[in-house]
Amino acid sequence: MTTHRIAVIPGDGIGKEVVPAGLDALHATARRFGLTLDFESFDFASADYWQRHGDMLPPDWEQTLRGYDAIYFGAVGWPEVVPDHVSLWGSLLQFRRVFDQYVNLRPCRLMPGVRSPLAGRLPGDIDFVVVRENTEGEYSSVGGRIFEGTDRETVLQETIMTRVGVDRVLRFAFELASRRPKRHLTSATKSNGISISMPYWDERVAAMGERFPDVRLDKFHIDALAAQFVLHPEWFDVVVASNLFGDILSDLGPACTGTLGIAPSANINPGGEHPSLFEPVHGSAPDIAGKGIANPIGQIWCGSMMLEHLGHPEAAAHLLGAVEDVLAYGPGQAPLTPDLHGTGTTAELGRAIAERV
Amino acid sequence: MTTHRIAVIPGDGIGKEVVPAGLDALHATARRFGLTLDFESFDFASADYWQRHGDMLPPDWEQTLRGYDAIYFGAVGWPEVVPDHVSLWGSLLQFRRVFDQYVNLRPCRLMPGVRSPLAGRLPGDIDFVVVRENTEGEYSSVGGRIFEGTDRETVLQETIMTRVGVDRVLRFAFELASRRPKRHLTSATKSNGISISMPYWDERVAAMGERFPDVRLDKFHIDALAAQFVLHPEWFDVVVASNLFGDILSDLGPACTGTLGIAPSANINPGGEHPSLFEPVHGSAPDIAGKGIANPIGQIWCGSMMLEHLGHPEAAAHLLGAVEDVLAYGPGQAPLTPDLHGTGTTAELGRAIAERV
Ligand SMILES: CC(C)[C@H](C(=O)O)[C@@H](O)C(=O)O
Ligand SMILES: CC(C)[C@H](C(=O)O)[C@@H](O)C(=O)O
Repeated sequence: MTTHRIAVIPGDGIGKEVVPAGLDALHATARRFGLTLDFESFDFASADYWQRHGDMLPPDWEQTLRGYDAIYFGAVGWPEVVPDHVSLWGSLLQFRRVFDQYVNLRPCRLMPGVRSPLAGRLPGDIDFVVVRENTEGEYSSVGGRIFEGTDRETVLQETIMTRVGVDRVLRFAFELASRRPKRHLTSATKSNGISISMPYWDERVAAMGERFPDVRLDKFHIDALAAQFVLHPEWFDVVVASNLFGDILSDLGPACTGTLGIAPSANINPGGEHPSLFEPVHGSAPDIAGKGIANPIGQIWCGSMMLEHLGHPEAAAHLLGAVEDVLAYGPGQAPLTPDLHGTGTTAELGRAIAERV
Repeated sequence: MTTHRIAVIPGDGIGKEVVPAGLDALHATARRFGLTLDFESFDFASADYWQRHGDMLPPDWEQTLRGYDAIYFGAVGWPEVVPDHVSLWGSLLQFRRVFDQYVNLRPCRLMPGVRSPLAGRLPGDIDFVVVRENTEGEYSSVGGRIFEGTDRETVLQETIMTRVGVDRVLRFAFELASRRPKRHLTSATKSNGISISMPYWDERVAAMGERFPDVRLDKFHIDALAAQFVLHPEWFDVVVASNLFGDILSDLGPACTGTLGIAPSANINPGGEHPSLFEPVHGSAPDIAGKGIANPIGQIWCGSMMLEHLGHPEAAAHLLGAVEDVLAYGPGQAPLTPDLHGTGTTAELGRAIAERV
């Protein structure tokens, strides 16, 4: 029996509240499927750690985390204590880059029992996945300021796309699309306005498309695509996007499926040379942190994605099935959290799902 | 009685179909209010012109258009004939920059009689305006490619923000917010991920905010903001955003109000040294062009914004009121276009509105 070593990083805010619920669900699933998951918790990548050390991470973080099969992550960011760009570039964005987690996979699915803010949408109507480039593009640390404090003050920020970086995420997206029943891939672009990087993106999409003649390919400018997520979410199957566009679409998509609280994401290093990282989409949510009412389902669904990544598709499906069952009971029968129109707490909803497993 | 000289540029696709309807409505309004509007039509900034001249604009376009009080614009872009980044950078994006139309004003309002794709939203629930920076930021022509055709191929695209450019659009947005009843301004940022330009944007927002203590100011990262447009559109009053973020939000907002077909925009040079330009948000829409079913309301509403800009607020309000009246009749009573769930044509709906004026 394989043992999987998993690093757990709760981080900030509701990250610390939903991770325990996620671990309970994983423990229950592991028991049921006879898996050995060996968890070790770390307090870095958090504002607390920053306050104590003046840094987001210990110097040997890379060596430490490299020893694990996966990273189970809550959320990072607590702007009252440390500016967001410092905390994020000092932790999560480092992980993605250093561990070459170049695919950020974000499923958007309208689940049974969840009310969509879109009129008349039912479970099954919305079911797509965003494949986000996760290491380059608009998220670059290259640039700077000049003539500071004067009227000539000018700020530059470089977007950087490489052939290697673009092609590998496109290949992943095409392969994923070609394995799904609809075989439909949509590319997010903005080549009419962003006139250097985005036409390049389009070119690479077209070139890769030739290798996947069985995938139906289309493209939308990001402005129109955002509009279509609201008007016609049923059009989409796999959506591939640059780092920034993927970020936007993978918050907008889950909003259309009712709540950001249930949305998971997998930061994947497809080659397996480095650990992959699993974190909910919602972030640290300072507005509701400390109240015990955060929805743990995003974190729990992440656990399912992690199990799948570790080679246990049945256990993964079972865990996700338990989530679906509990959601389907509805706020009357299950202790759903306020974002799901219930009055349950993080702990109660987590327990209900772990029991269902 | 003042005469206003207006340059008309129908452009491509449905631009050519909705501009005549817009002109009819403007003629009717001018008659009613005793205004003299002197229209002159131009065929440049179109794929037809490109095919004949190999360029989007004549060499003296700037001199020509400079003589007008405003530009009444349809849409440009016909990718079958000329790539979008060529046609747009060769026309519309030039106009914005050369005529220093640094504010792009885009109202989003759920109108009576229009069905929102968001469940349970009624007219009045959604009523905000996006103030988009319109000359710099992510839309820059600086950058390039290196190591072309090799595995090292790398593409750079510079985002450029200047203090002058950022501050002037922020000032406009704060002033606008301070004149509206809610006095609420939301800034779109992404300073957690885009770590050089966006923290700068935030700093300038905070600095400008100190001069407008009566405006309630908040900020959202663009990913969360896109989600909140869907989940809580009633939260917003004035939203200020960089060029790219403003572009995305001003398509997403109108989608939440039912259709892109009714959304107008004003590309404004606030100082009045250069002509301002009024164009619907929808674009050339190759998918429905030639069918005569495009919604002319975005174009007509642009006419109202143009009248307001030219100093005729009553005429502007009257024209917009006529649009609201016709929309409120609903698809049963008025010849609404298919995007409004009716079976009317562009011409029929345009005529109904002109008559109502
Ligand atoms: C056509 C395109 C370049 C343009 C833009 O992105 O500015 C359009 O989407 C708009 O919003 O006016
Ligand atoms: C926190 C932030 C830097 C991050 C991102 O933009 O990538 C988050 O929004 C996400 O989507 O994982």
